[in-house]
Amino acid sequence: MRDFLPADIRKRNYVINIIKEVYESYGFEPLETPAVENLETLMGKYGDEGNQLVFKILKRGEKLDLEHAKSESDLSDLALRYDLTVPLARVVANNKNELPNFFKRYQIQPVWRADRPARGRFREFYQCDVDAIGSSSMVVEAELISAVGTILRRLKFKDYIIKLNHRDLLFHLLDLANVPKASHEDALIAIDKLDKIPAYQVEAEMVGKGVNAGSASVLIDLYTKIDNAWKLGYDNNPILVSEVLSDDNEAKNYLLQLLNLLPCEKLTISPFLARGLAYYSGTIMEIVLTDGDFKGSIGGGGRYDGLIGMFGKEQIPACGFSLGLERILVVMEERGMFPPEIAESVPADVMVTIWSEETVGESLNLAAELRKGGLRVTVYPEADKLGRQIKYADSIKVPFVCVLGESELAEKKVTLKNMKTGEQETISRSEVIEALRK
Amino acid sequence: MRDFLPADIRKRNYVINIIKEVYESYGFEPLETPAVENLETLMGKYGDEGNQLVFKILKRGEKLDLEHAKSESDLSDLALRYDLTVPLARVVANNKNELPNFFKRYQIQPVWRADRPARGRFREFYQCDVDAIGSSSMVVEAELISAVGTILRRLKFKDYIIKLNHRDLLFHLLDLANVPKASHEDALIAIDKLDKIPAYQVEAEMVGKGVNAGSASVLIDLYTKIDNAWKLGYDNNPILVSEVLSDDNEAKNYLLQLLNLLPCEKLTISPFLARGLAYYSGTIMEIVLTDGDFKGSIGGGGRYDGLIGMFGKEQIPACGFSLGLERILVVMEERGMFPPEIAESVPADVMVTIWSEETVGESLNLAAELRKGGLRVTVYPEADKLGRQIKYADSIKVPFVCVLGESELAEKKVTLKNMKTGEQETISRSEVIEALRK
Repeated sequence: MRDFLPADIRKRNYVINIIKEVYESYGFEPLETPAVENLETLMGKYGDEGNQLVFKILKRGEKLDLEHAKSESDLSDLALRYDLTVPLARVVANNKNELPNFFKRYQIQPVWRADRPARGRFREFYQCDVDAIGSSSMVVEAELISAVGTILRRLKFKDYIIKLNHRDLLFHLLDLANVPKASHEDALIAIDKLDKIPAYQVEAEMVGKGVNAGSASVLIDLYTKIDNAWKLGYDNNPILVSEVLSDDNEAKNYLLQLLNLLPCEKLTISPFLARGLAYYSGTIMEIVLTDGDFKGSIGGGGRYDGLIGMFGKEQIPACGFSLGLERILVVMEERGMFPPEIAESVPADVMVTIWSEETVGESLNLAAELRKGGLRVTVYPEADKLGRQIKYADSIKVPFVCVLGESELAEKKVTLKNMKTGEQETISRSEVIEALRK
Repeated sequence: MRDFLPADIRKRNYVINIIKEVYESYGFEPLETPAVENLETLMGKYGDEGNQLVFKILKRGEKLDLEHAKSESDLSDLALRYDLTVPLARVVANNKNELPNFFKRYQIQPVWRADRPARGRFREFYQCDVDAIGSSSMVVEAELISAVGTILRRLKFKDYIIKLNHRDLLFHLLDLANVPKASHEDALIAIDKLDKIPAYQVEAEMVGKGVNAGSASVLIDLYTKIDNAWKLGYDNNPILVSEVLSDDNEAKNYLLQLLNLLPCEKLTISPFLARGLAYYSGTIMEIVLTDGDFKGSIGGGGRYDGLIGMFGKEQIPACGFSLGLERILVVMEERGMFPPEIAESVPADVMVTIWSEETVGESLNLAAELRKGGLRVTVYPEADKLGRQIKYADSIKVPFVCVLGESELAEKKVTLKNMKTGEQETISRSEVIEALRK
């Protein structure tokens, strides 16, 4: 887990603030949930691997009976939040009367997973989730995709696509190839590698995992047909290829209709896109960067009409999107995408010096006056040699220093020193504010 | 632990943003640390009671050896953050070369304590800490107090005082009364009640706890003298009372000098103010509300020159202040101190209706156009009876609805309905933006 020093936080907040602003402009409202949930709320929601990766909290005081404890569940009743979707479902089920029946929320908070840390993988990391609860209309998907696209544009991402799929379309292709249910996962994991390794290797992997050779070959054939049609351009929409899908395929038509609502060249239907299959019940979405060193996903989402029903009595349709903040930050850092005022941000606009013990009050007054003028002002903490004060100012990279020495105090002026050019001039306090305020 | 629904978060963010803005205007920089710390970092820092109240995290996988576990420490190696001071000390000790030698940081994050929940006391709550590390100069105290005062002014608090004391002054008074070290705590707890219950009861409590009757009587006498001098007004500074303190008392002179740097009628020297005595080494500070139902402390701080040395090899002077966010919020709520745009905030400026399945795209386009004009826009999620759409808009309290029906579409106009007055007019899209943008 990481400490975030000031320069990190400024970059994180720059991205988070854009995400918040855009989501709020779409009418999504902020929600925050506690870091700690009841253990039973989380158990069984993330599969066996997830159960292992949940950080569990030791029972306290009398509740901790070490002598008779036989398993983890005797020792723990609370756990750290593992994602933001399960807490949302709990909040919706618990606050039915307070929340509107169509509830749009965003939530940007850390989650914790007891994973082995690796490059770009942390045990504490932020998720940025946006979800709309209570409608099964396609308008929800359209607004989510539009909002996410706006965020990426405002962050200055250029080379990305948003892949769309539908659970039924994916399974229809598996059925066409006669892949039995037990082999779905293996087949999909292998197919996902087709844009990285040759087809014969992918086919071998599938067969090695127990997929019937005929099915493997049909699947690769389907993928290739779709991919080739795709390469002919945007108008030759691959899922129109009549060899593959009939005109009355509902999932296909759903996606075409959605595409029609969002005329944008960044969108693509990707019939083999598979993610969140344990809970996604309809639309599946993913943002993929297409240029630069990092080519993976920086976010994804989908429709999960069955999940909230696990917490209340009622089935409530829902659809959401999650942005990978940590990945976005890594890519933006590598590509130098932060605006200069963020990348080179400094703790203050100006530092005020202290001439002597007797003039401390004068320096504090000057600082107060400059702050009233809208400047961010730090004061050197003690009467000290001027050279040391300037050296400190340089070390924290403040762009200007206000020297308040004996002659300046006598003249009721200050000497303003530009730390970049070394130039300095003796001017009035109001001139300082004017010179530094942008 | 609590969920924060949208209306809560807007109020919390209003307060947090003012705190951030003010601290940044004083040159304090943001810092964030992980929720989870190594257990050994936290143990022994908060006394026996604190050790009990730390939430401990169960070891995972192979590390959890239930069979041979004999104590909590065999079961846990990580714990949840208990305050923001110990993590700061760890960060400063770990990042000596990256941080400036005089480091000013603020940190606003939740902490967790396994306390019994009570009114206004939560197991997860936010702390707002501001600290300056690396200088023992009084300038640090002066800037901290000035910043905190600015925050309270901006939040519109009027009836409060900031109490100042010095550890040496407090102990000097205890010495004057010949209170032995073992009774310091009992004596101070009793003295603290003098503004609530009669003196004879306080005296009885002290004697009951084992304080020598003579000492108890002298202490109450000292308190009364100081209190009476106080009531004569600001100029008759109580610690000037020569019967109590000699002119060369260093702690007294220190506080007078500090007061001199901060000419403000909200400041008062409070020689019996006792808090954080386990680590405060000099100045002690506390903000107390003096009017309304709630009269307690909403924040406090002090100088702790010995704490950081516990984590590194070096003793580094430090001084800080912590604001009680939860208490501030409770008081502001009770007193109606939130500005109307926060207290009555709504999820969007306007809701766009959907006429029919065929016109969904038109509604989405209108929403996009209004957003480009700077408005926050939500779209009703489906084609539905107009009455139901209006009813939903009313339930989420959006102030305006844009109706986009057949006739409006034909005329390339929209009907803008004011939800408060019920008035509506059919106007162009740019007129909508103009009408709603403030």
